[in-house]
Amino acid sequence: MSTYYAVVMAGGGGTRFWPLSRQARPKQLLPILGETSMLHQTVERLLPLFPAERVYVITGRAHADDARDDLEMLPPENVIDEPAGRDTAPCVGLAAAFLEWRDPGATFCALPADHFIGDRDKFLAALRAAFEEAQSGALVTFGVKPRHAATGYGYLECEGKRVRRFCEKPDAATARKFVESGRHFWNSGIFVWRAAAILEEFRRHLPGHHAILSTIAEAFGTSRLPETLALEFPKMPRISIDYGVMEKAADVVMIETDFDWDDVGSWRAAAARRPTPTEGLTECVDSPDCLVLSTDDHLVATLGVEGLVVVHTPDATLVARKDRSEELKRLVERLKARGLEKLL
Amino acid sequence: MSTYYAVVMAGGGGTRFWPLSRQARPKQLLPILGETSMLHQTVERLLPLFPAERVYVITGRAHADDARDDLEMLPPENVIDEPAGRDTAPCVGLAAAFLEWRDPGATFCALPADHFIGDRDKFLAALRAAFEEAQSGALVTFGVKPRHAATGYGYLECEGKRVRRFCEKPDAATARKFVESGRHFWNSGIFVWRAAAILEEFRRHLPGHHAILSTIAEAFGTSRLPETLALEFPKMPRISIDYGVMEKAADVVMIETDFDWDDVGSWRAAAARRPTPTEGLTECVDSPDCLVLSTDDHLVATLGVEGLVVVHTPDATLVARKDRSEELKRLVERLKARGLEKLL
Repeated sequence: MSTYYAVVMAGGGGTRFWPLSRQARPKQLLPILGETSMLHQTVERLLPLFPAERVYVITGRAHADDARDDLEMLPPENVIDEPAGRDTAPCVGLAAAFLEWRDPGATFCALPADHFIGDRDKFLAALRAAFEEAQSGALVTFGVKPRHAATGYGYLECEGKRVRRFCEKPDAATARKFVESGRHFWNSGIFVWRAAAILEEFRRHLPGHHAILSTIAEAFGTSRLPETLALEFPKMPRISIDYGVMEKAADVVMIETDFDWDDVGSWRAAAARRPTPTEGLTECVDSPDCLVLSTDDHLVATLGVEGLVVVHTPDATLVARKDRSEELKRLVERLKARGLEKLL
Repeated sequence: MSTYYAVVMAGGGGTRFWPLSRQARPKQLLPILGETSMLHQTVERLLPLFPAERVYVITGRAHADDARDDLEMLPPENVIDEPAGRDTAPCVGLAAAFLEWRDPGATFCALPADHFIGDRDKFLAALRAAFEEAQSGALVTFGVKPRHAATGYGYLECEGKRVRRFCEKPDAATARKFVESGRHFWNSGIFVWRAAAILEEFRRHLPGHHAILSTIAEAFGTSRLPETLALEFPKMPRISIDYGVMEKAADVVMIETDFDWDDVGSWRAAAARRPTPTEGLTECVDSPDCLVLSTDDHLVATLGVEGLVVVHTPDATLVARKDRSEELKRLVERLKARGLEKLL
């Protein structure tokens, strides 16, 4: 029988949580939603289903040590660092090649490190169902029943359990049609497949990537691995697993679920999901609907404000309207243009 | 002929500019309205009319060294420290006793250190007229022609050039009547008088204060002065020159003027008077009508906010609606109740 693994993709950088997130401290390593980091919460959520030694985390080289420190429940060698960020397809391919080498016939779940999942039991039930489904060789996706006509997520269009189409983020009118159709589900970016099955899809749809992964696979278990990985991995062009493989694959099925899910893409989203509206040394007078975080022993005081996110870090502070926090990129671009990279 | 002096009253503390103002750094020592402190601006404004050695500053003991550092244009000994804050009457009395001892027959202007005056030439012209008027022995006040029905200032009610009544801060309806009357002027808290004349009024209306001032005056020019001052000055009950003397004095005249004047009593008032809306390392994206100050090399960034005051200091940050900044006292009270005095 196939052994089950989990591979947490923790490669992202991103500035959507500036000034808390930085190039050196990306979102997944931060306690955006409470006491522990999003990565930590993601791994914790998996542990009822996977023994720790079968949970892997793939992260950027610059963040691997921080991730190991953050994940005291995992063997340190289970945190694998990519030599370069190449989006999700090379990351998934490396995981597949490694697991198929380590344990031929393995099945694994690939999932993002930085998403909110509100109901662990539903999530684990869906995961169990997905692992069973994947034994046939199908590529299994998780479709989350939409709770509103979100324009910030991709959608899966289904016919029965089969995925007919991967839909990009829709405009508002399309999103409403999607929700009414009953056949469209949020694409959560969580996948389950046999390592051999996804590698076969790489061979068909990303043959260049597949060849490089084969070269890397020959080095597993040898002293050449670090050198080979450093040389070969960055040769793979940057592409997501959705675009590179899933949209073209024939045998894609969907597990329908309705756990509360969110990719937590902005301060506004984080504020909606956090257990408390303040953290650290704060004093908020008549300040409804605000998220106020102070990360050091600096006092942040608010008076008579509404709907703001205020985040204090040792070298930079953000004061933004919560419903404008999606535009943080503009602010970050301006800081870059001013030569303030050290604050990014 | 009488020699003219200026005495700047720089004794205030106050929390209305928290977190920039602290118990150790009161408003007058802060660059609330631009590059230099309000005290510095007040002294600069006087220098066309008074040689530096005839400008005195009276400040609290805790702030005297800072004031000397701030006022490099004055002889250091012209910054006089009060042993204790006792409001304006004891401060004026001490100045009068000192000047009458130093230069019998002296006339002086007593003025606050922390007010905005928009038109220096008009101010100096009014000051010249006031000094001439004061030679008769009258107590001369400055009445500023009201520009709107302010409820935050006291008013002077006049009949011709004579002041008939000192009116406390009015309610809105009363303020409107005052402005319509044409006989009410804002009480700017600026006074000119002969030292002997105001001392005589102390003798009449504040005889206890007068006796203490006489004791102190006997120590001028002797080695006993520091000890006598420290012992006697705090014995004077706390009272303002308006309540203690001016409301009761018979010979009070008013110089009418219409320079742009403001006591700058809140962050909102400061924002309206500042030449620039930001200071220090800031980046404000789509943030109209905001005052954003960063006092250290910390970046303060705003996005999509309006009508805020944001002030960053090394240990505390304020984010407030500008039109609520008068309520800062509530916030400060809460900090005190939490035992955060070190931030006040």
